Amino acid sequence: MKKATIRNVAELAHVSVASVSRYLNNKAKGRLSEEKAKAIEQAIKDLNYIPNLAARQMATNQSKTIAVVVSNIDDYFSTELFKGASNILRVKGYEAFLLDTNAEQQRERELIKTVSSSFFDGLLFQPLGSNIKTIQSEFIHNIPTVILDRRLATKRWPQVISNNVTASKDATKYFLKQGCDDILILSSEVKIASTRRDRYSGVCAIANPDQIHLIELDEESYNYVTIKNKIESFLLKQKVRNKKTLIFSFKERWLLAFLPMLFADGFLNSDQVLITGFSDTKLVQTILPEARLISQNPYLMGASAAEILLKSLSGEDNSKNYEPLIVPAKF
Amino acid sequence: MKKATIRNVAELAHVSVASVSRYLNNKAKGRLSEEKAKAIEQAIKDLNYIPNLAARQMATNQSKTIAVVVSNIDDYFSTELFKGASNILRVKGYEAFLLDTNAEQQRERELIKTVSSSFFDGLLFQPLGSNIKTIQSEFIHNIPTVILDRRLATKRWPQVISNNVTASKDATKYFLKQGCDDILILSSEVKIASTRRDRYSGVCAIANPDQIHLIELDEESYNYVTIKNKIESFLLKQKVRNKKTLIFSFKERWLLAFLPMLFADGFLNSDQVLITGFSDTKLVQTILPEARLISQNPYLMGASAAEILLKSLSGEDNSKNYEPLIVPAKF
Repeated sequence: MKKATIRNVAELAHVSVASVSRYLNNKAKGRLSEEKAKAIEQAIKDLNYIPNLAARQMATNQSKTIAVVVSNIDDYFSTELFKGASNILRVKGYEAFLLDTNAEQQRERELIKTVSSSFFDGLLFQPLGSNIKTIQSEFIHNIPTVILDRRLATKRWPQVISNNVTASKDATKYFLKQGCDDILILSSEVKIASTRRDRYSGVCAIANPDQIHLIELDEESYNYVTIKNKIESFLLKQKVRNKKTLIFSFKERWLLAFLPMLFADGFLNSDQVLITGFSDTKLVQTILPEARLISQNPYLMGASAAEILLKSLSGEDNSKNYEPLIVPAKF
Repeated sequence: MKKATIRNVAELAHVSVASVSRYLNNKAKGRLSEEKAKAIEQAIKDLNYIPNLAARQMATNQSKTIAVVVSNIDDYFSTELFKGASNILRVKGYEAFLLDTNAEQQRERELIKTVSSSFFDGLLFQPLGSNIKTIQSEFIHNIPTVILDRRLATKRWPQVISNNVTASKDATKYFLKQGCDDILILSSEVKIASTRRDRYSGVCAIANPDQIHLIELDEESYNYVTIKNKIESFLLKQKVRNKKTLIFSFKERWLLAFLPMLFADGFLNSDQVLITGFSDTKLVQTILPEARLISQNPYLMGASAAEILLKSLSGEDNSKNYEPLIVPAKF
């Protein structure tokens, strides 16, 4: 059974495609003659034609679809973001589609080009970086957009972000009080994303420069063994010097990757090594019931962004100046 | 700048929408008068109109989009599947969109209904279950489809699956030879998915029934602490009885969740507890460098399924009887 198209309906009813389109769009139905409307109705029945999204978009200029472009679907942060957004959108009759930039700038450029020039009614977008010029240059059309998880220097788009500086400061203060001498930060490249810059500057605002040690990880190479060795050789030196260390992970995935190895190699069974980090699920808290973590809520961030987008699609919101919405991370 | 639509172009050029559609479809261009074609060309320039996917679909009956519906985007298996598929599709000019059934049957039904009645040219589908009647009833139209990761009792669709029975048998044989007395299986509900049924039957084909112990986990509740307690109380009993245990995880996520806790609670530092399981990434191997795991290749499975789908879309493949393609898991 091949799908009948709007063109098949038009041919069978001896009318133009535009007339069928008008018929499918309730608002424009009145502009058709009764005779034409009947012929179209009959053709739709005969062909068992189900108007698809494309036809509906032609008729209503709406596809009821939203693109969600995230930086890496391997992160729970990104998948939870999508789950939160799609649940809200679904209730309002919109279908959300997930697109993955795979942490590649070139891929992000392609996807935003495609999404902004195609049938989507709106976009929820977690950019890789925070460079506003780069991001703007990726759009072909001004599709209604909400930015997620990056603080951009523009009021053009609504933004849903987390209070990264404050959460990071609070955690640093707490652990210095607990007697930590040094902070070992695990992070993807800090400078490209506002999220990580904010977290880093939060630590820097509280700790002395000589207390801060940064290990940057490459999202794409997953060179776990090299990184594990770096962490462990740092911890060994600290042990010799009798220093207390805080391991501060800027991404949940890095904690999930390295905790088991550090446990297995016996590095976590003393009170000389403490752990904290940004976490997106209950998993890390279960693994480390004693640890004080920074809980983000990507599900809520996705849901909030979806609500803002729906408001703008319904025409309720004609603002030209958006202040970022902050969904707080809790320490 | 509001996006110009095909209708705006038609109005400005004083032609019908169908004529613009014909103009955009190279094959049908010849059917237009030169005068009309010129007017349309000018209107497209004046409005800075970029034909969107909807317009292109109207013109060519192709959207160059593929839906990838997976059972849970929280599993690396599903996200790697998508990465493999979308990389192949992208090279051939198709864009892949990821949809998440969130491990809910009702949601799967909704999504397949939407996808099969909308603009997608094809579907890569990892169903939740293996009931062929349930799955068939979800389709509104016969969209070109490749089934992933489930062995269905039909030749109607191509299927890309793994050799779960064999891999599971091989692992069980090996670990019984290593002197394991009992096998503790961690799995989502076994009976609904062919993947898990095959893995379970592989174990049953080799081990005695009284050696096999099953803990089923609920994908949605994430009740980690209860499960951890079950595992640990089992291991304690084994210790008292001086029995050697194999923990056999049917899903990578369960290993990632429970390994750190078992390490932290001191259950993994004896040779009386061995670990194996199906793994989708290099992560578990890094955490357990000594362990013998069953490596699946979801990336390759996604890529292979995409190639089969492309062949069928290009019309090269008119088969009505498909034998499943097996991408072997390696023990």
